[in-house]
Amino acid sequence: MFDPIAALTEYIRQPSVSTDPAYAVGMEGARRHLVSLLDSMGLGVEVIATAHHPVVLARREGPASWPHVIIYGHYDVQPPDPLNLWTSPPFEPETRGNRIFGRGAADNKGPQLVHIAAAARLIEEHPDLPLRLTFLVEGEEEIGSPSFSGFLSAHHDILAGDMVLLSDTLSPSSRRIAITTGLRGVLALEVELIGPRMDLHSGIHGGAVLNPLQALVDICSSLHDREGRVNIPGFYDDVIPVPDWERQEVMRLGFSIEEYRNLTGVKSIHTVDGISPHEATRFAPTLEFNGIGGGYQGEGSKTIIPHRASAKITCRLVPNQDYETILKRVAATLQERCPAAVEMTIKEGGGGGPYRVVPPGRPDTPTEQSEVLVRAFGAADRAIEQVFGERPLYLREGGSIPVIEELRRVLGMDSLMIGMFTPEDNLHAPDESMDLALYEKGIEVSQRILSQLADTT
Amino acid sequence: MFDPIAALTEYIRQPSVSTDPAYAVGMEGARRHLVSLLDSMGLGVEVIATAHHPVVLARREGPASWPHVIIYGHYDVQPPDPLNLWTSPPFEPETRGNRIFGRGAADNKGPQLVHIAAAARLIEEHPDLPLRLTFLVEGEEEIGSPSFSGFLSAHHDILAGDMVLLSDTLSPSSRRIAITTGLRGVLALEVELIGPRMDLHSGIHGGAVLNPLQALVDICSSLHDREGRVNIPGFYDDVIPVPDWERQEVMRLGFSIEEYRNLTGVKSIHTVDGISPHEATRFAPTLEFNGIGGGYQGEGSKTIIPHRASAKITCRLVPNQDYETILKRVAATLQERCPAAVEMTIKEGGGGGPYRVVPPGRPDTPTEQSEVLVRAFGAADRAIEQVFGERPLYLREGGSIPVIEELRRVLGMDSLMIGMFTPEDNLHAPDESMDLALYEKGIEVSQRILSQLADTT
Repeated sequence: MFDPIAALTEYIRQPSVSTDPAYAVGMEGARRHLVSLLDSMGLGVEVIATAHHPVVLARREGPASWPHVIIYGHYDVQPPDPLNLWTSPPFEPETRGNRIFGRGAADNKGPQLVHIAAAARLIEEHPDLPLRLTFLVEGEEEIGSPSFSGFLSAHHDILAGDMVLLSDTLSPSSRRIAITTGLRGVLALEVELIGPRMDLHSGIHGGAVLNPLQALVDICSSLHDREGRVNIPGFYDDVIPVPDWERQEVMRLGFSIEEYRNLTGVKSIHTVDGISPHEATRFAPTLEFNGIGGGYQGEGSKTIIPHRASAKITCRLVPNQDYETILKRVAATLQERCPAAVEMTIKEGGGGGPYRVVPPGRPDTPTEQSEVLVRAFGAADRAIEQVFGERPLYLREGGSIPVIEELRRVLGMDSLMIGMFTPEDNLHAPDESMDLALYEKGIEVSQRILSQLADTT
Repeated sequence: MFDPIAALTEYIRQPSVSTDPAYAVGMEGARRHLVSLLDSMGLGVEVIATAHHPVVLARREGPASWPHVIIYGHYDVQPPDPLNLWTSPPFEPETRGNRIFGRGAADNKGPQLVHIAAAARLIEEHPDLPLRLTFLVEGEEEIGSPSFSGFLSAHHDILAGDMVLLSDTLSPSSRRIAITTGLRGVLALEVELIGPRMDLHSGIHGGAVLNPLQALVDICSSLHDREGRVNIPGFYDDVIPVPDWERQEVMRLGFSIEEYRNLTGVKSIHTVDGISPHEATRFAPTLEFNGIGGGYQGEGSKTIIPHRASAKITCRLVPNQDYETILKRVAATLQERCPAAVEMTIKEGGGGGPYRVVPPGRPDTPTEQSEVLVRAFGAADRAIEQVFGERPLYLREGGSIPVIEELRRVLGMDSLMIGMFTPEDNLHAPDESMDLALYEKGIEVSQRILSQLADTT
C-alpha cells in the first residue's frame, strides 16, 4: 500500500539542491527514492542522464487506444539558505499542526506526489485500468531546465501523449483551488557598460568622463514612461486583449488591495492605468530590474568613477508576445540609447514564451482541443467542487514555467495545472511547508480525474 | 646626518593601513619611526591620542617674532590590495631604476619626508635658525580625518601659525612642478530606497509593485540634465567665475585630449559645454555616482523585485559653494523626487568645503594675505625655477583635502601646497612609487623656502 505521508517525508529528507554540486548525494538520494516509489507501482522506470541532472522517467504502457497522460514534476529544490531562519532543519521534515515543514515540501515534492499517490491507489484498485501514464520528473527545474528542450526532442516518440497533468502552480488558499490557465513567459538579459579602463579617482577625473553608472541609470530610466508603461518601440504590439471571462475569474478572487499591501509590505501598489494588482500581475507584460550594480557598495565611501556598471533585466511576456521578437526589440533599444562614450555588451539569459490554455466551453476555446484534455478539465472541475466544496478558479499566473510552453511547442500537448501550493507555504523561503489536508484532498481530486479519463464507457 | 633615502625606506617598511585594525602594529611602527626622526632633529615630540589613530606632533619653538610654519602630513596609507598585482611586496621597499616602490611611497610618506629632511638639513647647518616649526602628522587621512577637526580645536593655541606647508597634491610630471591653488570640496551621501518588505518573486508580483531599483534609476537619472549639468535647483547659484590667469595656467599644461583619452581609456571625453577635461575637473562642480546597487548581482539570473536599492553619491564643490547649503539642496531634491510607493533614507557621509588660495600678485589676490605666506609663495616660485629649470604651474586640483579648508576655517591659515607626486606614481594602486630624483630636488626646494622664511634681514 502506497503511504503518501511516508513517501513525502522520506522525499523531503533528501537534500536535492540542483544548483550546488555539494548536494550531489542528495540529488542521487531523491532519484533513488522516486525510482523505488514508481517501481513499487509496477511501472517501468528509467533514469536517463542529461548534461546536468538525470531525468526520472516511469511508464505505464498500453494500447494506443488508451488515453496517454504525461505527469510532470521536478525532484530538485531551492537552496535552503538562510539556514538560521528555519524553525526546524530544512532536510529533517517535521510535522507541526497539520503541516509538514521542510525544503521542497511544496515546491515540488508534495504536489508532485499528489499525482503519483493518486495513480498508485488507482492502479492498486484497478490493475487493468485502461490508461497510459508517463511520469516525467526532471532535476533541473530550479536552475532553468537547461537540458529539458533537448530531452523532449530526443524522446518525443515516447513523450507525445494526449495531455500533461501537473501541480506546480499556486492556489489562493488550501480551500480555494485554482486551475492555472496561463503562465507569463520570461526573457532574461544582462547589460554591461564599460567606461574608463579602470576605476578612476572621482576628484582627479570627475567632470571629464562619462560615469558608466550615470549612463546606466539614464538608459534604465528610459525603459519606462512616466505612467509605468514599458517604453520600448513595439513592446506591446502583439499583446492580445483579455476576454471578459478571465477578468471575472480574477474578480472572484475577492482579495483586496489592502490585503495585497499587507502581504508585500509596500506603501502603495503601483500598476499601469491603476488596474488591480491581480490583473496586472496576470495579464500585463513587464520589464523588471532584478539587480543593478557598479562601483563601491561596501561600508563608508570610496570616491571613484567605476570602470563598469551592469543591470540584470527580465521581461515577463503575455500572449501573443514572441520571445525572439521581444528580445530583439529590447536589445536594439538598449544599444540605441547607449551613449558613445561607453561600451555596451548584452548577454542573453534565456527563458521562454508565454503559455495559455483555454478551458472548454469558453467563448474563445479553440475548436481543435484534445478530447482527453477536454474530459480532464471537466473531471477536474467536478472533482474540485466535490472534494473542496467550491468550484475551482480559472486563473493565469504571473510566474513562468518555460517547460509547459515547450511541451506544447515541441510535442503539441496542453497542460492541466492544478494549484497545490498556497501563499502560506513559503516557497523558496525558510520554513517551507505543505498543508497535509490539502495534500490528501489533492490526491482524491487527482484520483478522480485519472479515473474518469480511464473510463472508456 | 639625516639620510633621506634610509628614512623613506624604513618608513615604507611600516604597514600603516589606517582603515584595517589588523594593521595596528604597522601604524605603531610608522609612528615610532617618525618620532625617532623628529626627535633626532632636536624637536619636542608628542604622540597625542585621538578616537582612532594618534597624531604625531613635533615642535621647534621660539620667540613670537619668528615666523611659524605648520608642516602637515599623514603617516597612514591606503590598503595594498590587490596584492597579486604588485611587482615587489608593498611593504618591502625596493628600488628599481630611479624609483622606490612600496605602499605609501608617494602618498604621503615621501612627499612628507621632503619637508622633514629639508628642515633637518637646515637646522643642522643653522642650529640657531629663527624659525618656528610644527610638524602635524595625522594617521587618519585615508579614512577621512574624523578626529582632525576636534584635534584642531583642542590644540588651536599651539597650532595657530602663520601658514601651512605641505605636499599631498599632484604635479604634471617629475620635471614640471605644480603649486596647488585650490581643491574641490567633497560631499558624500548615501541614499537608500526600501520597497516591499522582502525580495518578491518578480513573476508573482511583477507589475503591481514599484521596484526600488526602478525608483532609484529614475531619481538618479533626474539629477543631471541632457547636457550633463547637475539638475538640482540652486546647485550652481554660488559658483564664482574663474579668472583668466587660472585658465591660462591650465593652457600651459599642454596636455591634449588625445593624451587624456589614452590615460583614462575612455572612448570619448564627456564635459559640460565641451570645455576641456583639464578645466572641467578643476573648475566645475560635479555630482557623481560612486556606487549603485540593489537586487541580485551574482552569476546567472534571480527573478526578484528587490527589497532595497541604494546609491553612493559624492559632489565635488568649487568656490563659493557651501557644504551645508549644497547638502540641504541635494537631500531636499532627492526627497522631493522619491515616489510615495518607496521609503527613502539619506545618510550623510561627511566631507568638506572647497578651498582656494590666490598667489601674491594676481588680479584677485586678497589684500590681507599673511606676510609669511606671501614670502613663501615667492620663495617657492624662485626655488622651483632654479632647481627644476621651469617656473611652477599654479593649478587647482580636482581632488579634495578637507583638512586644508579646516585649517583655514578653524585657525585662519592658508596653505602652500607643492605637488610632489605625479600621475606615474600609482597612488592608491599597485606598484606605488616615488621618483627619487624628484624627492631629492623637492628637499632642495623646501630647504630654500624654509631658509628664506627664516631670513629676517
